[in-house]
Amino acid sequence: MNLSVPQIDGVSQDPDEFGELRERLVMRLETLLPMAEGEDDPVGIAMRACLLSPGKRIRPMLLVLAGQGLGSDSSALFDLGCATEMVHGASLILDDLPCMDNAQLRRGQPTIHRQFGEDVAVLAAMALLTEAFRLVASTPSVPPEARAPLVARLAEASGMRGLVKGQYRDLHADSRMRSTQAVATTNALKTGALFEAAMLMAATVSEADAFATAELSRFAQALGQAFQHYDDLIDESGGDGKDTGQDRGKPTLIALLGAETVRWRLSSQLEQAEQHLAAVFPADQPIHRYVQALSIRLMRAN
Amino acid sequence: MNLSVPQIDGVSQDPDEFGELRERLVMRLETLLPMAEGEDDPVGIAMRACLLSPGKRIRPMLLVLAGQGLGSDSSALFDLGCATEMVHGASLILDDLPCMDNAQLRRGQPTIHRQFGEDVAVLAAMALLTEAFRLVASTPSVPPEARAPLVARLAEASGMRGLVKGQYRDLHADSRMRSTQAVATTNALKTGALFEAAMLMAATVSEADAFATAELSRFAQALGQAFQHYDDLIDESGGDGKDTGQDRGKPTLIALLGAETVRWRLSSQLEQAEQHLAAVFPADQPIHRYVQALSIRLMRAN
Repeated sequence: MNLSVPQIDGVSQDPDEFGELRERLVMRLETLLPMAEGEDDPVGIAMRACLLSPGKRIRPMLLVLAGQGLGSDSSALFDLGCATEMVHGASLILDDLPCMDNAQLRRGQPTIHRQFGEDVAVLAAMALLTEAFRLVASTPSVPPEARAPLVARLAEASGMRGLVKGQYRDLHADSRMRSTQAVATTNALKTGALFEAAMLMAATVSEADAFATAELSRFAQALGQAFQHYDDLIDESGGDGKDTGQDRGKPTLIALLGAETVRWRLSSQLEQAEQHLAAVFPADQPIHRYVQALSIRLMRAN
Repeated sequence: MNLSVPQIDGVSQDPDEFGELRERLVMRLETLLPMAEGEDDPVGIAMRACLLSPGKRIRPMLLVLAGQGLGSDSSALFDLGCATEMVHGASLILDDLPCMDNAQLRRGQPTIHRQFGEDVAVLAAMALLTEAFRLVASTPSVPPEARAPLVARLAEASGMRGLVKGQYRDLHADSRMRSTQAVATTNALKTGALFEAAMLMAATVSEADAFATAELSRFAQALGQAFQHYDDLIDESGGDGKDTGQDRGKPTLIALLGAETVRWRLSSQLEQAEQHLAAVFPADQPIHRYVQALSIRLMRAN
């Protein structure tokens, strides 16, 4: 923790307080990804393009900060964080495909299938997903008997009970699903599941007790809902370097409740997230400042 | 081992000697896959359609027979076998996509994307791949510390150093790759890697020694080459319920060497495979009869 950073109400005034940590994560990602072998390895180049383009690294940042806050100084936190980022990257590549959202832009750049072709995009997604599991199963600083539960945790968040199910529900939402509860379930699967896996992996490595583990799980779900609300709001307004209007015709909460109510819900979910976090971490823990800075950014959505 | 089966030269005369084992594997697969929840879960239905359609189950059959031949009676062999079948199924769904081979038929049925749409096909492949890793990481009859190396093994065969790389090379083979060595490398990645993972998982669970493990690895690579030769031959002639002519323009060995030489190589690879197998298993082991029956079928390719 950098004590020299001036703070007001616990919010860091130094926009770069977490810059160094983010950089360490990116450097680790870079080491873990295949080296670009020139034209012979476009799948590797696509994997790197997906994961090394500027990104917020929210899942790995939260995983590392939570693990450190729980007293772990294991370098495993970085590798597990990178694994969540690989699964997230794979899901973004697939979401953007012509047969899914057919997105042209992501983080201000042409989407991976537009840069490398659909076949390379699909193979890069599969390779990222597989590499995430290989990485978790091979993390040297975690004892072998603890690795298998971490793999299972990540797989549950990624597969047919998590991300995959959320993505399907998101694509095929029809009239039966036009309820706020149904949208919340889709959000929980599509975004909450991987946040939750990140928190549970941090808790496992840090040998957190059942209470802390449960609170971190609730924190992740609330933050996941907040992120989906934010995504809905920026889809209307543009921003974040993505296509706008991708959600037209989908039963987002904005269509159901109006933007004003969604903004209120976003704020309320962020408040809940911070309460669950406060149940685990003392107020001076860096993770609070990280989440507060995140919250401020999310609340700026129009 | 069913001693009542009449045998000539070690080849089973009972076409159903392995029927019961195959059925047990299919029943286990059925239990492991998500239950079809009606129209609400087309991804689950697509996963079942992919894996429960009639198939030869070669990877799990080899894994179980090798493991049992090495003295293991662990029920883990069945789960690990099912995991290899899930990875194989995922790779078939992806291979058939419009952006890859654009295949219309597989095992005499419309391909998964033709039955369920491209988006569901991609999600089902992602879910099968993820479920394979979850399954290996959770196999109750394997001690937790042994599970992580099995996950890593399967991931290495499936990802950017195995199946994914083989599929990319197969799709994008160009003039630089028109050598028999280059085609052999593609075959090793595309087919050999998963056969090898199956053998290495059987060896790990059965605590096989280094010699047996290395021989099984060589057996798997030879069998993988034989399968790719067989695939090339039937692609020319039709059969096996797949589209024909998919390989036109690809530098298959047939284009390089002619069908007669490929048939000779197929026979030679099968002979090598059986030699490596004989270095590990006594002649009366069922796995010999299984591989011999497989060899006879492969040699019938025109």
